Amino acid sequence: MPKNELLYGVAYYDEYMPYDRLDKDIKMMKDAGINVVRIAESTWSTVEPSDNVFNFSHIDRVLNAMHKAGIKVIIGTPTYAVPAWLVKKYPDVLATTPGGRNQYGMRQNMDITNKDYLFHSERVIRKIMEHVKDHPAIIGYQVDNETKSYNTAGANVQAQFVQYMKDKFKTTDAINKAFGLDYWSNRINSWEEFPSMVGTINAGLKSEFAKFSRGLVTNFLSWQAGIVREYSKKGQFVTQNFDFEWRNYSYGIQESVDHFAAAKALDVAGVDIYHPSQDHLTGAEISFGGDVARSMKNGQNYLVIETEAQGFPQWVPYAGQLRQQAFSHIASGANMLEYWHWHSIHNSAETYWKGLLSHDFQPNPTYNEAMTIGADFKKLSPKLASLKVTNKAAILFSNEALSAFNEFSFGWGRRENYNDVLRPMYDALYNMNVGVDFIDPSTQNWDNYKLIIVPALYAAPDALLQKLNQFVKNGGHVVYTFKSGFSDENVTVRNTVQPGIINEAAGITYSQFVLPENVSLKGDPFKAGEGNKEIKYWMELLTPTTAKVLASYDHPEWGKYAAVTQNSYGKGTATYIGFMPGDALLDKIMEGAVKEAGLWQEDQKLHFPLITKSGKNLSGKTLRYFFNYSAQTKTFTYTQGNNGTELLTGKKVAKNAELNLKPWDVLIIEEN
Amino acid sequence: MPKNELLYGVAYYDEYMPYDRLDKDIKMMKDAGINVVRIAESTWSTVEPSDNVFNFSHIDRVLNAMHKAGIKVIIGTPTYAVPAWLVKKYPDVLATTPGGRNQYGMRQNMDITNKDYLFHSERVIRKIMEHVKDHPAIIGYQVDNETKSYNTAGANVQAQFVQYMKDKFKTTDAINKAFGLDYWSNRINSWEEFPSMVGTINAGLKSEFAKFSRGLVTNFLSWQAGIVREYSKKGQFVTQNFDFEWRNYSYGIQESVDHFAAAKALDVAGVDIYHPSQDHLTGAEISFGGDVARSMKNGQNYLVIETEAQGFPQWVPYAGQLRQQAFSHIASGANMLEYWHWHSIHNSAETYWKGLLSHDFQPNPTYNEAMTIGADFKKLSPKLASLKVTNKAAILFSNEALSAFNEFSFGWGRRENYNDVLRPMYDALYNMNVGVDFIDPSTQNWDNYKLIIVPALYAAPDALLQKLNQFVKNGGHVVYTFKSGFSDENVTVRNTVQPGIINEAAGITYSQFVLPENVSLKGDPFKAGEGNKEIKYWMELLTPTTAKVLASYDHPEWGKYAAVTQNSYGKGTATYIGFMPGDALLDKIMEGAVKEAGLWQEDQKLHFPLITKSGKNLSGKTLRYFFNYSAQTKTFTYTQGNNGTELLTGKKVAKNAELNLKPWDVLIIEEN
Amino acid sequence: MPKNELLYGVAYYDEYMPYDRLDKDIKMMKDAGINVVRIAESTWSTVEPSDNVFNFSHIDRVLNAMHKAGIKVIIGTPTYAVPAWLVKKYPDVLATTPGGRNQYGMRQNMDITNKDYLFHSERVIRKIMEHVKDHPAIIGYQVDNETKSYNTAGANVQAQFVQYMKDKFKTTDAINKAFGLDYWSNRINSWEEFPSMVGTINAGLKSEFAKFSRGLVTNFLSWQAGIVREYSKKGQFVTQNFDFEWRNYSYGIQESVDHFAAAKALDVAGVDIYHPSQDHLTGAEISFGGDVARSMKNGQNYLVIETEAQGFPQWVPYAGQLRQQAFSHIASGANMLEYWHWHSIHNSAETYWKGLLSHDFQPNPTYNEAMTIGADFKKLSPKLASLKVTNKAAILFSNEALSAFNEFSFGWGRRENYNDVLRPMYDALYNMNVGVDFIDPSTQNWDNYKLIIVPALYAAPDALLQKLNQFVKNGGHVVYTFKSGFSDENVTVRNTVQPGIINEAAGITYSQFVLPENVSLKGDPFKAGEGNKEIKYWMELLTPTTAKVLASYDHPEWGKYAAVTQNSYGKGTATYIGFMPGDALLDKIMEGAVKEAGLWQEDQKLHFPLITKSGKNLSGKTLRYFFNYSAQTKTFTYTQGNNGTELLTGKKVAKNAELNLKPWDVLIIEEN
Repeated sequence: MPKNELLYGVAYYDEYMPYDRLDKDIKMMKDAGINVVRIAESTWSTVEPSDNVFNFSHIDRVLNAMHKAGIKVIIGTPTYAVPAWLVKKYPDVLATTPGGRNQYGMRQNMDITNKDYLFHSERVIRKIMEHVKDHPAIIGYQVDNETKSYNTAGANVQAQFVQYMKDKFKTTDAINKAFGLDYWSNRINSWEEFPSMVGTINAGLKSEFAKFSRGLVTNFLSWQAGIVREYSKKGQFVTQNFDFEWRNYSYGIQESVDHFAAAKALDVAGVDIYHPSQDHLTGAEISFGGDVARSMKNGQNYLVIETEAQGFPQWVPYAGQLRQQAFSHIASGANMLEYWHWHSIHNSAETYWKGLLSHDFQPNPTYNEAMTIGADFKKLSPKLASLKVTNKAAILFSNEALSAFNEFSFGWGRRENYNDVLRPMYDALYNMNVGVDFIDPSTQNWDNYKLIIVPALYAAPDALLQKLNQFVKNGGHVVYTFKSGFSDENVTVRNTVQPGIINEAAGITYSQFVLPENVSLKGDPFKAGEGNKEIKYWMELLTPTTAKVLASYDHPEWGKYAAVTQNSYGKGTATYIGFMPGDALLDKIMEGAVKEAGLWQEDQKLHFPLITKSGKNLSGKTLRYFFNYSAQTKTFTYTQGNNGTELLTGKKVAKNAELNLKPWDVLIIEEN
Repeated sequence: MPKNELLYGVAYYDEYMPYDRLDKDIKMMKDAGINVVRIAESTWSTVEPSDNVFNFSHIDRVLNAMHKAGIKVIIGTPTYAVPAWLVKKYPDVLATTPGGRNQYGMRQNMDITNKDYLFHSERVIRKIMEHVKDHPAIIGYQVDNETKSYNTAGANVQAQFVQYMKDKFKTTDAINKAFGLDYWSNRINSWEEFPSMVGTINAGLKSEFAKFSRGLVTNFLSWQAGIVREYSKKGQFVTQNFDFEWRNYSYGIQESVDHFAAAKALDVAGVDIYHPSQDHLTGAEISFGGDVARSMKNGQNYLVIETEAQGFPQWVPYAGQLRQQAFSHIASGANMLEYWHWHSIHNSAETYWKGLLSHDFQPNPTYNEAMTIGADFKKLSPKLASLKVTNKAAILFSNEALSAFNEFSFGWGRRENYNDVLRPMYDALYNMNVGVDFIDPSTQNWDNYKLIIVPALYAAPDALLQKLNQFVKNGGHVVYTFKSGFSDENVTVRNTVQPGIINEAAGITYSQFVLPENVSLKGDPFKAGEGNKEIKYWMELLTPTTAKVLASYDHPEWGKYAAVTQNSYGKGTATYIGFMPGDALLDKIMEGAVKEAGLWQEDQKLHFPLITKSGKNLSGKTLRYFFNYSAQTKTFTYTQGNNGTELLTGKKVAKNAELNLKPWDVLIIEEN
Repeated sequence: MPKNELLYGVAYYDEYMPYDRLDKDIKMMKDAGINVVRIAESTWSTVEPSDNVFNFSHIDRVLNAMHKAGIKVIIGTPTYAVPAWLVKKYPDVLATTPGGRNQYGMRQNMDITNKDYLFHSERVIRKIMEHVKDHPAIIGYQVDNETKSYNTAGANVQAQFVQYMKDKFKTTDAINKAFGLDYWSNRINSWEEFPSMVGTINAGLKSEFAKFSRGLVTNFLSWQAGIVREYSKKGQFVTQNFDFEWRNYSYGIQESVDHFAAAKALDVAGVDIYHPSQDHLTGAEISFGGDVARSMKNGQNYLVIETEAQGFPQWVPYAGQLRQQAFSHIASGANMLEYWHWHSIHNSAETYWKGLLSHDFQPNPTYNEAMTIGADFKKLSPKLASLKVTNKAAILFSNEALSAFNEFSFGWGRRENYNDVLRPMYDALYNMNVGVDFIDPSTQNWDNYKLIIVPALYAAPDALLQKLNQFVKNGGHVVYTFKSGFSDENVTVRNTVQPGIINEAAGITYSQFVLPENVSLKGDPFKAGEGNKEIKYWMELLTPTTAKVLASYDHPEWGKYAAVTQNSYGKGTATYIGFMPGDALLDKIMEGAVKEAGLWQEDQKLHFPLITKSGKNLSGKTLRYFFNYSAQTKTFTYTQGNNGTELLTGKKVAKNAELNLKPWDVLIIEEN
């Protein structure tokens, strides 16, 4: 993958075309500046129409035509949708989930640990690799797509899980103790009687099974990457298309995959990012997904393997938005932007998830705008590509905490989850233009960070909490929310004073918590304004030991307790937020924490909808992106950087100049 | 069936009576003018209490007693509820549906293609027919009841579906191509591996399976009708009780039955029509169901086999409403009106779906009002019966379009369906007193129509769309909504310019569509009033080629696109509505189309709640019904017809007279 | 069980402790005045870790330590949660329900009639009893916990149900007739073909199956009690922990258990009562559950086996509330109050159902308040224990009516159930301080009552309705709601005039009923105020025969019908309420009925939030409790009783004194 070239691409399915359009499509791609396509992903039944019968004609003709046109190709292994003949022969290929055996039809319905699935997956991958490995158009490979365990939980998986538990805990008694299985007579006294996790009511075991299931994904991707690497050439990358918690768009941390672990087997991180558009385009998902993707491989540039062109009807972009989105991805460190997909599919399930072209294959406003993006990418690639992004703040997330948190949410029947805590905190930082990395419990080195945000670290081993204490002691700043430190890695609630272990640095304690009702914040301690005192979801009744009280509850009974505290500990400070604030209030609390951490600088003079991102380009120069995420023209004073050149227009920009941003517009200043 | 007699009847279940009431019931029926009963439907377990043991005593005693009293009888075959012994012997009689094998208990739980079900159905029908065929009380037969495929989808059905596909498409490759099965690796390469449709995610295959399932119903009814006809006498009819899309009342086109195809095997169309009542009685469902029923057999009079007497607690009619309803049915062309049911059932599931009598068998206000209806029917039958209704407007509906449309609705998670487009259009015409027929893709002759309304003709073969173009060219008027012409008969989106094929007559094109948000109509082009600009569900971004723009969107981004267009094409015009209007706006758009089609006449001076219906009676005289569907007295000038006589009162009515309609009242004027 | 000692206790699970805390816990219990613990319930897998291997160590150490500390112990049999090994060996132990075979994990997932479950249950009970029977700490036994049939409905249960039906009805024809099985061909002609009740649509059969299922519970508990009694000593009681209809708290009559029948096998009634707290604490559930529990054993004092300490986050009590609750239980006749549970569980499912201690085992505000309760109980036990409560009013409830009513609610799709009628009527009486007992159809003697409230007695045998008529004739007062008398014991609607049989005493009739819409009460006949005319759920169109009309409907069509009537019959009166009133209106209607019955006395001068309860203590003196269920201080004049002493303070109180009640406070006056 060339470091100094932005890849601009589409998923391309010659297999799905109603008639032979390859040449016409390539012509239109070239017109739009498309320089890469992803092919072959999820088309197993075309490549291997029946058992051990292979047909590479679509792959061949596309590879050849693209190569001729100078368009690079990423080959996807086809394994995330299984052919009918495979299921007919081996019905167990379909996963048995808590809802029963899956039906044939849907993609991602298989048991990724089933031996027949694996045998045939390996064979088809090897056959494809043998066939294509020498083709010069190929720049990389994608192994599988949006892989998860898909809730596979049949006998096959249960046996593996029991073995996993045996390896990890050695004895059933250790398990009984770690997870409290005496409760409701759930005790296990021999490995043979280990019951299926489908029915378990033990939050710890469920979370452990979730962790095990994430491990299946890591193993599966590593295994595929290993096979592909037996054939791939030097310079060709292996990636995957990771996705996020889905709320009809890419919302938050993915429960079903340990992105950091799974990414180890890949050369470069790839993600899909789908997001609201039209009046709801904020750039937050682009930034969030990008920050996670960049953090997966320790700050390395990443690939946006899929994002929307037209997408759903509610996503058809306004004029300027497609362009805005494209530069937003690049500004977060993406080196590739690929639309799903080139055309709009005429059949089946995703007819209304439209591509760059509509079903009529004619130019349309979205395609026309893509042409300007392609042109700008081509022109500016050497300056824009491989942006090096460096941040002083990080968000500590944890798949383990997420799974455990979600077992309980805020009580029976409540649906809010871990991401309902994490994303608002992320968004607050995004809105105030504080760049962040993501770290997880496996991240060794926190030295680069001055500020770590810790949302709802519900389940965590002692060592992680002690490391957080140490980080503060050494001069770091941490912002915790409620429920952090509550339980250990087995989702056993700590029987010491709460918040467990971190109370030392946070300087508080609590033993009771309630649901907010008829309560708000006392006074306006964060200057958030009178209407902005919302207390949501949960409230811990905090008592400071050494902390100072930043805010208290306004309630006849709970008014004596602290709501937000801040504690000096060693050389640093720990802020603790005992409840979930409404967005506007959270913004102000986070602003305080950012200031306390010494990270309040020139970028922070801008606030959403004015978004700025920056980094160093390959020439070592600082690039500063400015986005206007609104339908109104915005003006601001350019104090963030030095004199430079706006790259899209080529105009010089002096420090302290007044700059205009039209609706949904972008400026890219390269400092001199 | 006598042409000059209105049938007024009830479903009668001697089997369900808590004690022997036959003579008392007949006395009360005679008092109420009841002259027909339907019996035997759904009482298989009484007629055949165990395998091959028959007991006709209930049938015999009712036939004899009714005959003696001069009450006609319709015999229903009992096959829509299976006896316990049949299921015990042949468990596969219970259909396997996407939710698994059905349980015994509910009616309509069987696989109508199961060989044991068919064997025993045939036998019980033949036994009944042999037993009753010579009885003079019988005027006709109803085969089964509200028949559908009930989502039967087990192995048995799958085998039939594969055979159906083989017959239709010949090769699996033809299927792969027609339905785009390369998508998500769904390709089928041999008939043996053809997967069950239960899991399919292919909208085209699902729609094809729905069509196949409707075929099962057609076949089943034809088969039953054939058996019955082996025994029935000349002059006795065969009918079925068709029902409609159910929204706690009869709402729209029935997805599960192809009414036009299934009705071919019948002598006369029969339907059940249940509708809101009390403050919510509008007559719209009576008119809608009647128009569909009349259209099933090409304008022939039809039977209302079931409608409510008291019905649900929320349906107990206000004074006058039962009468209003009765004449409304007749005014749409019904020749029979039969209540479900005579008494109110004391047990089981439908205790609160009350009949003409309450559980106490005593006269009650509803029964008392029925007595006046019976008396008027008796008196006026020769003048009212066999009304010939002729319309210049038609609604083109399509079961295929409906199934395909409903696969997508307006996006994932949306529940609005095809009938949410069709019914409001129907209601707009109903409210402005424009009579309509229904036509479907099988209707050959459109010559009688000046105006065809085409709601959401989502899936259609080229020929149908070309025929619509030709209709306009020849001077016809068509009103299309959004999504018409979008996909072909296999639910493959056309890859030409949209709206597919019909763009020629409509003079527009579009390649993008969005969901309405913060948008309304620009100005008030239809004089619908400031508050009536609602844009619902969907909006296509129309660009006229030759059409004139009747309305545009009021939106900063989409304001440049047309919302409603009208195009002259040949001698006719095509109106295209790119979005779903709110009801009041739709009324006005439709008013414009009706005027353009030259159908705006005297009837249109009245508007709901004043409803008028007309036709020719057996004497060739024009009958004009006027209904007041409100709780307020209404006055209007009688300009719609010539001098005549109001039949209920016998009073002469002169043209241009001022007429009064009391709440929920009706006038019937026979023109001189 | 000592009659003159209040038991104050907790459920204690040594098995669940993260480390050995027994001595520390006992120390803290003693500090709080805890004098009883319940142990061993639901810990089968600890007691019998593998088949026929027993381990009593937790039981032994707790028994010994408690005894040493002078704390009494209740032993629970562990049978309501089954061990994994049992299910592994005998998968049929898991019940097959309408949703399929249960999964292992959840408690209460077993088939309580399964022979292997019963064999192993019996063995573990006998082993425990043999082991503990001589231990002096034990005061009683709890058999199983919150037992129900858990919807068990597999082949095993079906066979038993058929036998039950055979025993009860003798012939299938009798069943066909009683339940109207001709409907929808449901007729049964041999016992062999009797279909599973899982699929039945017959409301009568479903209700009969519900009754049969309640019988399974009665049998199971009697069987367990019998086993326990083979070992228990004189003076040791056998109880069960009954619960109520659960709406995230204890709301109403339990459908799945016939409390009165099941309690026959017990020595003392035990219940769990969970209720809203904080701003929503009213005491109504404490009073309701207590009145039911006291009535189970004919007025005998009862045990509160479980109630909340901290409970859910939304239940953490305000200062004073825990104390308020404790005395409320005692005031209704409880002799024991036991928290579920001592500590807060660190794992599994009920982490957020907190005990008296938080997970940190430290004193907290709730525990601190418990200490005051324990001290007061200890001090006042001789005066407070074994309160004898006598009431002149009773509510007649019926499990049979409940099951039948709930089959239909107020129409398809409606969710309101029997308790939505009963509880508001109970609450109206509670709010006006009218003490009530509960009686059910098995209650022989009604002589003590002047007023019987009869909510929605939907299904009832003739004899019960005749007994109600006779009660009125003899001078009693009855208040009926709508739907009473409607169907017989087989849920067959009476075919006579409605309300069936009771119309004689009620002096009314109706044959139609509707759902309320745009309707209220005419005028303000009950002086409830203009805003309080709400008519909910259902309205019967009543016509008086001999009754006087207390209220009519305000509606253009239904205005001619009566809404509330009152009839003199013999020496008594019957009030009939034809609709469900809003709460404020119901209050006033009930006030009228209470006055008519001559029960309006001094207690009725107080109204919620001022609640008073009274009874005789062991010394024969009258105790009067006064509660303030609000956050405001309340003042009232003490006119309810004679001069006496307020026991908590020891202050003398003179009749007609002005008394103050602080927020959430209680006074207990012992009359001189």
